[in-house]
Amino acid sequence: MLRQSQHEITIATRGRGFHEFTDEVTELLRATGLKTGQVTLHLQHTSASLLIQENADLDVRRDFEAFFARLVPDGDEIFVHTAEGEDDMSAHIRTALTAVNVTIPVIRGSLALGTWQGIYLWEHRTHPHRRRVLAHFIGE
Amino acid sequence: MLRQSQHEITIATRGRGFHEFTDEVTELLRATGLKTGQVTLHLQHTSASLLIQENADLDVRRDFEAFFARLVPDGDEIFVHTAEGEDDMSAHIRTALTAVNVTIPVIRGSLALGTWQGIYLWEHRTHPHRRRVLAHFIGE
Amino acid sequence: MLRQSQHEITIATRGRGFHEFTDEVTELLRATGLKTGQVTLHLQHTSASLLIQENADLDVRRDFEAFFARLVPDGDEIFVHTAEGEDDMSAHIRTALTAVNVTIPVIRGSLALGTWQGIYLWEHRTHPHRRRVLAHFIGE
Repeated sequence: MLRQSQHEITIATRGRGFHEFTDEVTELLRATGLKTGQVTLHLQHTSASLLIQENADLDVRRDFEAFFARLVPDGDEIFVHTAEGEDDMSAHIRTALTAVNVTIPVIRGSLALGTWQGIYLWEHRTHPHRRRVLAHFIGE
Repeated sequence: MLRQSQHEITIATRGRGFHEFTDEVTELLRATGLKTGQVTLHLQHTSASLLIQENADLDVRRDFEAFFARLVPDGDEIFVHTAEGEDDMSAHIRTALTAVNVTIPVIRGSLALGTWQGIYLWEHRTHPHRRRVLAHFIGE
Repeated sequence: MLRQSQHEITIATRGRGFHEFTDEVTELLRATGLKTGQVTLHLQHTSASLLIQENADLDVRRDFEAFFARLVPDGDEIFVHTAEGEDDMSAHIRTALTAVNVTIPVIRGSLALGTWQGIYLWEHRTHPHRRRVLAHFIGE
């Protein structure tokens, strides 16, 4: 019979950049004992993203930062919402261009990620933040 | 025991811009009586988005519009698909760059949104449209 | 009573471009016999996307390609990660700007897609690839 389970993951970021937390989700999944099902991850913030991306090469994350810094410049003169700093509105837009929630199937007790897929929290603010991700499991 | 429930939300937009409907989803959730679970929202259109974003400052939404108008210009000369107006192809691309579905956990009878998160329908067409969002709840 | 079911869809792409597979998902749904529920699709790759978009006009897909080729140029001089070809890092970024998973409600035995919505795998690499999509159904 299907059952569900919820957990909160807290991540202390060191400012803008990628923080992989695939292992934390895998640990939570093991604790649930679910063999078949799915997990939904929801990030409770509007200036950071959840991203499933290549976990092999550090240059990929470096290139992501370089590309997004050019695409959505901090302190862009088009922005009116600047009270919280030059990186605030750009962080909101980076978030909208990516995602704050993802759902991943669980197969034979494991996350059904591809060989190169890792789960990242992508911090878009330049200063460190405490970020909360909710993990909702359904399965059996 | 887990159960499910489906509802349709209709939103009449006033043309390009943001329409918050967090309260409608909260009302539907209350009516289901679910305490723990999740809700999936799916927008049945290809020229509008679902966006979870900051609900505190109007300037944020204004800056979103300004940024996306520059990033994906209406009537861009690169477009061939122009029969339905200058804002049609740009609307499709804005939709692809954001999202048409999201899944949000339900905890203690409430949507597990962050303090600043609201659920928006973002209309990308310049004229008013009638938009349909399906809400699928699973929980207990 | 709610039950679940998982399936793998393999898609052989012909290089960069759109591959619609709405019919494959509809077939799987029929085989499950579910009338009410939802399906989560997860693409196990970091250089291709899942996209729900307009399925009526070929020009729309052509314009998507043209727009993204300009937005995220292959071989952009900003990229350091170039060992796997000029289209590799741009493919990762296109993937992050779109999505690798979607959840669609099932109503009266059918996918609750809008009139113009089709489900596409969008291949971002220039060479053909074999891509795997997992379909996870929950419902009754």
